[in-house]
Amino acid sequence: MLHIDIGVVKVPRYGAVESGDTLEVIERPGGGLSVVLVDGQGSGRGAKTLSNLIATRAITQLKDGARDGVVARAVHDYLYTYRMGQASATLNILSIDFASGSLRVSRNNPAPFLVLSEGRVQVHNEPSTPIGLHPLSKPVISEIPLRPGLQVVMFTDGLLKVGERYGVDMEIGNYLAGWRIETDQPATALAEALLSRAMELDRNEPADDISIVVAAVIERESAHRARRMTVSVPIEHVAERHEETFNGADD
Amino acid sequence: MLHIDIGVVKVPRYGAVESGDTLEVIERPGGGLSVVLVDGQGSGRGAKTLSNLIATRAITQLKDGARDGVVARAVHDYLYTYRMGQASATLNILSIDFASGSLRVSRNNPAPFLVLSEGRVQVHNEPSTPIGLHPLSKPVISEIPLRPGLQVVMFTDGLLKVGERYGVDMEIGNYLAGWRIETDQPATALAEALLSRAMELDRNEPADDISIVVAAVIERESAHRARRMTVSVPIEHVAERHEETFNGADD
Repeated sequence: MLHIDIGVVKVPRYGAVESGDTLEVIERPGGGLSVVLVDGQGSGRGAKTLSNLIATRAITQLKDGARDGVVARAVHDYLYTYRMGQASATLNILSIDFASGSLRVSRNNPAPFLVLSEGRVQVHNEPSTPIGLHPLSKPVISEIPLRPGLQVVMFTDGLLKVGERYGVDMEIGNYLAGWRIETDQPATALAEALLSRAMELDRNEPADDISIVVAAVIERESAHRARRMTVSVPIEHVAERHEETFNGADD
Repeated sequence: MLHIDIGVVKVPRYGAVESGDTLEVIERPGGGLSVVLVDGQGSGRGAKTLSNLIATRAITQLKDGARDGVVARAVHDYLYTYRMGQASATLNILSIDFASGSLRVSRNNPAPFLVLSEGRVQVHNEPSTPIGLHPLSKPVISEIPLRPGLQVVMFTDGLLKVGERYGVDMEIGNYLAGWRIETDQPATALAEALLSRAMELDRNEPADDISIVVAAVIERESAHRARRMTVSVPIEHVAERHEETFNGADD
């Protein structure tokens, strides 16, 4: 049975409590899934607020059935209008569209995405600009038929910056060309491998937020034909924040 | 390090291509996560459309920062207004709210949810009605402090109906009271165990859509303090649908 698997890993830059990137996954009303990945300009709370606002606009419209290219344009227009061309963000929409039988990437992001299929790596680095800065921006859209063995790798630009301080880099195209692993969970395995390599090159202190999404089409038996999802989020800082609030209320 | 883990499994009733239930997970703008689970009245495309519409309204408002109880009320008012009290749906919102340091369940659903903590099982079956039918409906809200070992189990009523045809039932309270498993992934393990038991009791032909959500607070080392997500969706019917569309275009 054919499955779509999505694996996501997301780390904040070293020293930050939370990532400025926002990633949401929604079920498409016409069937399938969309992953929205936004990297807001700047860092800290401002960047997080920006990426949250944009991701919210995008998923709301996708849930209402709007086509991906229209969503990317409308979200750009929103940001450009209300921030008057002064704020930018990157926006990637990766959709597995059951209605068209394809995987579609709509990219407003200078960072490329990569496709692995039948032992070959294709780098999609067609020129693309972030949203928010120039009038009438539009996404670069790539459409790929769903077929077993297909893997698509998408990320925020933090992944391209790793190792810069040490004169090394991910060489992600080469890395993927050499990627071979036998597992029932290729999407998760590849996302974790990329994160491990990034952390190694940045000596466990990433200079920027890093978010990595891998989508894989795989042939696999599925117990009960179930849809499955797992989410895991560290909450080490919650208690502290909570106490701060609480103490604040006591003051 | 403390983590929130969420495990979700979702199957359609036997013979149906897709579940009428809609489940979405979003990142809360104030920190944390919310899981929205909607079971629309009826079956087939109509039920799915209804649950999609309601889930969309709910996640949009949650992403805009609206508090859970207000979201449940507003979504009810929307459904009640536009379907004139003629359509109902169950709505559960499970939030892990970093701002309050708690797990919160807002329930418009006769089906209970269950809490496992320190070896005890608590069944939350306070009377609760679906949204859409009566003016001014509101959710039953339960708030539970985040603490290691906490597990919360939430589901659509399909889980309560399993085995009915064969004179058996889940006895979910008893099952959870006897639940012991040592694993790094308790949320996923429990969700899968419940699904397996349900499928066994219904002899692999579930009479209704079943969606199960388990949220667990666990102490665990995390590689790179990353947020992680995996999604797996069977797509066996896509190719067929796609071909139908394609052939249709050829005709």
